[in-house]
Amino acid sequence: MTGMIHGLGLGPGDPDLMSVRAHRLLTNARHVAFFRKAGRAGRARSLAADLIPADAVEFPMEYPVTTEIPLSDPRYNAVLSEFYAECTAHLVALARSGEEVIVLCEGDPFFYGSFMHLYERLKPDVPVNVVPAITGMSAAWTATGAPITWGDDVLSVLMGTLPQDDLVRHMKSADALVVMKVGRNFSKIVNALQSANKVDRAWVVEYAAMPDQTVRPLNEMPPDYDAPYFSIVIVHGQGRRP
Amino acid sequence: MTGMIHGLGLGPGDPDLMSVRAHRLLTNARHVAFFRKAGRAGRARSLAADLIPADAVEFPMEYPVTTEIPLSDPRYNAVLSEFYAECTAHLVALARSGEEVIVLCEGDPFFYGSFMHLYERLKPDVPVNVVPAITGMSAAWTATGAPITWGDDVLSVLMGTLPQDDLVRHMKSADALVVMKVGRNFSKIVNALQSANKVDRAWVVEYAAMPDQTVRPLNEMPPDYDAPYFSIVIVHGQGRRP
Repeated sequence: MTGMIHGLGLGPGDPDLMSVRAHRLLTNARHVAFFRKAGRAGRARSLAADLIPADAVEFPMEYPVTTEIPLSDPRYNAVLSEFYAECTAHLVALARSGEEVIVLCEGDPFFYGSFMHLYERLKPDVPVNVVPAITGMSAAWTATGAPITWGDDVLSVLMGTLPQDDLVRHMKSADALVVMKVGRNFSKIVNALQSANKVDRAWVVEYAAMPDQTVRPLNEMPPDYDAPYFSIVIVHGQGRRP
Repeated sequence: MTGMIHGLGLGPGDPDLMSVRAHRLLTNARHVAFFRKAGRAGRARSLAADLIPADAVEFPMEYPVTTEIPLSDPRYNAVLSEFYAECTAHLVALARSGEEVIVLCEGDPFFYGSFMHLYERLKPDVPVNVVPAITGMSAAWTATGAPITWGDDVLSVLMGTLPQDDLVRHMKSADALVVMKVGRNFSKIVNALQSANKVDRAWVVEYAAMPDQTVRPLNEMPPDYDAPYFSIVIVHGQGRRP
């Protein structure tokens, strides 16, 4: 009897915003796997902490250190690929021995998540169940206290890591915007929003649905602001409304 | 003591995918409001049916019949605006009498939802709490069994009601696509995807996360296909992956 791997979306952070299904699977877990940086507790692990059964077997998957390798260097992908293959081998062995394993995923597993790299490798060999979740961006626009899209608004989701010209082009053509992976890209994003004439409508949400959540208009922040990684920039659509 | 209005996101359909918070609020509800078409049970009401307490007071908000008024006619907006104002007055009166009222919302309340029209009218007068939820599009891409976005992929969310030229332009520039409000716009969407050279990568998900869910490649369907309103077209991103 082969077991199963569950890619379990935890949602934006508050355990109260986890789905009923995710909550049930997690509180009954026998094996719990999660990504973390070396020497850290792991964000997904911390979010789920109070719900993981005390006797569950934990499998921390520690990212290899890649800070010295440029993203464009083929070695970068090779190091990560080997890491994902090793994690996959361990999870496949557990499933083949009949176990069910919960892999903790921040946000929604299929939306810019690390789990996807395991999923593609696990899928040919063992059953995988993906539990969708509330995205960080849903928590961010909810935090602003205003709807993100109306009527026929076009919403574009952009990564702050994109080149500035690409950001400008997409910011100009969409009605509503979500910009993720903000962090060190903050000043580039501000410049792009200025070029797209949307900077006055932009909000910065940090740690959405977490205890230290903040919501601020972007134009009140210094251009060299040191934004945390878990920041999301939101521009609301202005579409049709009766 | 003023009460509160809760805009409660039910998620994509399966009650098991509702958040823990939404589930708790709903199963303890004293007043439950929901939109429906005249003479229908109401979709949100049906999704939540098993969880609404038997002694809860229900407030169905029946959309006025607008089928004979063109969308561009100012009377269309006037009729809807009056309807939302009437619903708001009733909800404000309940909150002012100290009651908490759950307003059922399909999907995520701030993402193309009808509740937004009440929210803007309620907000100046009474406390409103919005509970975000898993979107229908998350359920749709999960149903396809493949991640929607990788690396720096740009995701654009488009309404099938947009003019074909606008659809083509956005479909060409984004990496990953979600097209909602499909229904009668199916053939226009197919033509636009052909022009954007993405038709071979498109999937049609109907009734995502509901018992009658289907997932099919778009190019296997007849161009004059009569798509149900709850269809979502998905084109997956092809971004960087180790």
